[in-house]
Amino acid sequence: MELTIPSMSDIKRAHTRIARHILQTPVLTSHSIDEMVGASVYFKCENFQKVGAFKMRGAVNAIFSIVPENRTKGFATHSSGNHAQAVALASKMAGVKAYIVMPSNSAEVKKNAAIGYGAEVIFCEPTLKSREDTLKKVIAETGATFIPPYDDPAIIAGQATAAKELMEEVVDLNVVMAPVGGGGLLSGTALACHYLSPKTAVIGAEPELADDAYQSVKKGKLMPAKPPVTIADGLRTSLSPLTFEIIRNHVKEIVTVSETEIVDAMRIIWERMKIIIEPSCAVPFAALLKRKEEFKGQKIGIILTGGNVDLEDLPFGKSFAK
Amino acid sequence: MELTIPSMSDIKRAHTRIARHILQTPVLTSHSIDEMVGASVYFKCENFQKVGAFKMRGAVNAIFSIVPENRTKGFATHSSGNHAQAVALASKMAGVKAYIVMPSNSAEVKKNAAIGYGAEVIFCEPTLKSREDTLKKVIAETGATFIPPYDDPAIIAGQATAAKELMEEVVDLNVVMAPVGGGGLLSGTALACHYLSPKTAVIGAEPELADDAYQSVKKGKLMPAKPPVTIADGLRTSLSPLTFEIIRNHVKEIVTVSETEIVDAMRIIWERMKIIIEPSCAVPFAALLKRKEEFKGQKIGIILTGGNVDLEDLPFGKSFAK
Repeated sequence: MELTIPSMSDIKRAHTRIARHILQTPVLTSHSIDEMVGASVYFKCENFQKVGAFKMRGAVNAIFSIVPENRTKGFATHSSGNHAQAVALASKMAGVKAYIVMPSNSAEVKKNAAIGYGAEVIFCEPTLKSREDTLKKVIAETGATFIPPYDDPAIIAGQATAAKELMEEVVDLNVVMAPVGGGGLLSGTALACHYLSPKTAVIGAEPELADDAYQSVKKGKLMPAKPPVTIADGLRTSLSPLTFEIIRNHVKEIVTVSETEIVDAMRIIWERMKIIIEPSCAVPFAALLKRKEEFKGQKIGIILTGGNVDLEDLPFGKSFAK
Repeated sequence: MELTIPSMSDIKRAHTRIARHILQTPVLTSHSIDEMVGASVYFKCENFQKVGAFKMRGAVNAIFSIVPENRTKGFATHSSGNHAQAVALASKMAGVKAYIVMPSNSAEVKKNAAIGYGAEVIFCEPTLKSREDTLKKVIAETGATFIPPYDDPAIIAGQATAAKELMEEVVDLNVVMAPVGGGGLLSGTALACHYLSPKTAVIGAEPELADDAYQSVKKGKLMPAKPPVTIADGLRTSLSPLTFEIIRNHVKEIVTVSETEIVDAMRIIWERMKIIIEPSCAVPFAALLKRKEEFKGQKIGIILTGGNVDLEDLPFGKSFAK
């Protein structure tokens, strides 16, 4: 199978295409975090993005890449996370219907968020097979176009625009760090740096409990995901052939972190920066804290990916296996 | 007793004096909150200020107003809240010692924060009398200068700079809203608007369970504080003659809100804006939500006062008497 790697032009066109539909999120810094790490850290705040996550970039790019004549039957996806909200809102912006397949055990708040953006939510069993079967059925019945969460060049080009904006605002970054789940953001980030700032190293960060990207890069072949148990619920998915190909070529290293390290990092950002990030979003900062001796004095960019948490079920004060 | 009301020059000089020691905090907006309220709301984010609260402005102004020769014996205050951290850090910046009298039942995290800024923490009984007696003793022993939390023209002029910055960034505000506890911030905000944008109305917001400012303005005389039970722990104090005099002359109205309204408003800001604010800080937005019909189409400034919360004891999902 021929893999379509997004080009520099694809990323630039994506940025132009999505610019008026998304927020150009701020880049924040913190003196106390810089002191703690011994480096200058620039946080690209996609937790402030529409729907509260970078996923909006890819979804908007994928949907608006399609000519209006082919958008009329709407868009469909299966997701219980931020991609669901992103497809729902991007479809609404395009003036068409979104069909979101969600496991029946999804949180009420996520269901209501998608419905709030005007999407039709279809429930399925909480298994990948049921999700895929239900999605096929929905598409067969409605004629909607599938918007995949990460395994797609338009999605990757869209996610790449976060790093592009970061590098336009902060020059000469030594490193850009992003978390890796399915790899859409990390592969987009890696391509953006490769094209626009080749001296900038890209480092992926992953929970130890979901280290399929780390294992895949180490073994040189795509490794399956582990059972989805990490608190970083956005990172429980595994790489696709396309995202793996980009990551193996353009990402310097994948650093893994424990559940405790994730929650500790999340807490530091909440307490020091007074901003809300979700557990998945804390993973790169956890990796930086763990390996800070290697980054002394450097300029580090971190993509803060999202801020959607259940305020009634926060991890602070809970115990996590080390 | 002659009351010293800060002049326009006092506020401008305060701003010049403190500028390099504090952060010029961002003004954030939110489409979804604007839609919810039916107005344009500009949030001045003092939750991102050093020590996580606007209190830094007043403390820095008070301390740096004193000539260096008279700073050498350090500064003292009694506080279990943000003023303690502010005096501790501002003293550190001035290169002198801070003595902070705290009730023995203060949270460990607050004690450690003050110590982290290099302050000496002295414990007392959790009564106002013990706090004042212990402070007197500390001052007698050390020669330190007392930095009061609000009843002081230099403190008020310092707090006024938050509204000054807000009005320099956003012109033609119809209303500026701030919470009221001891009244340092509200009186400073009222003076800043009076001098710099007299058409801008200033509205104070207060918990129903700590409505001494509301009662004082209504009755035309200083009324005592109620027992300190509101969740908005920064607003449990009562006005002083000086802050009352400014507020009665320059604040259009005090709006009171229930505990449930405070927590609901706090939650909306956390969820929609992905920023962390403390309960006291949510009070003006709660007042705006409660009275939104009166503000349709207007430009509203809100001072977000602070973001220091105990992450292991958050109010979400808890029940509050209406």
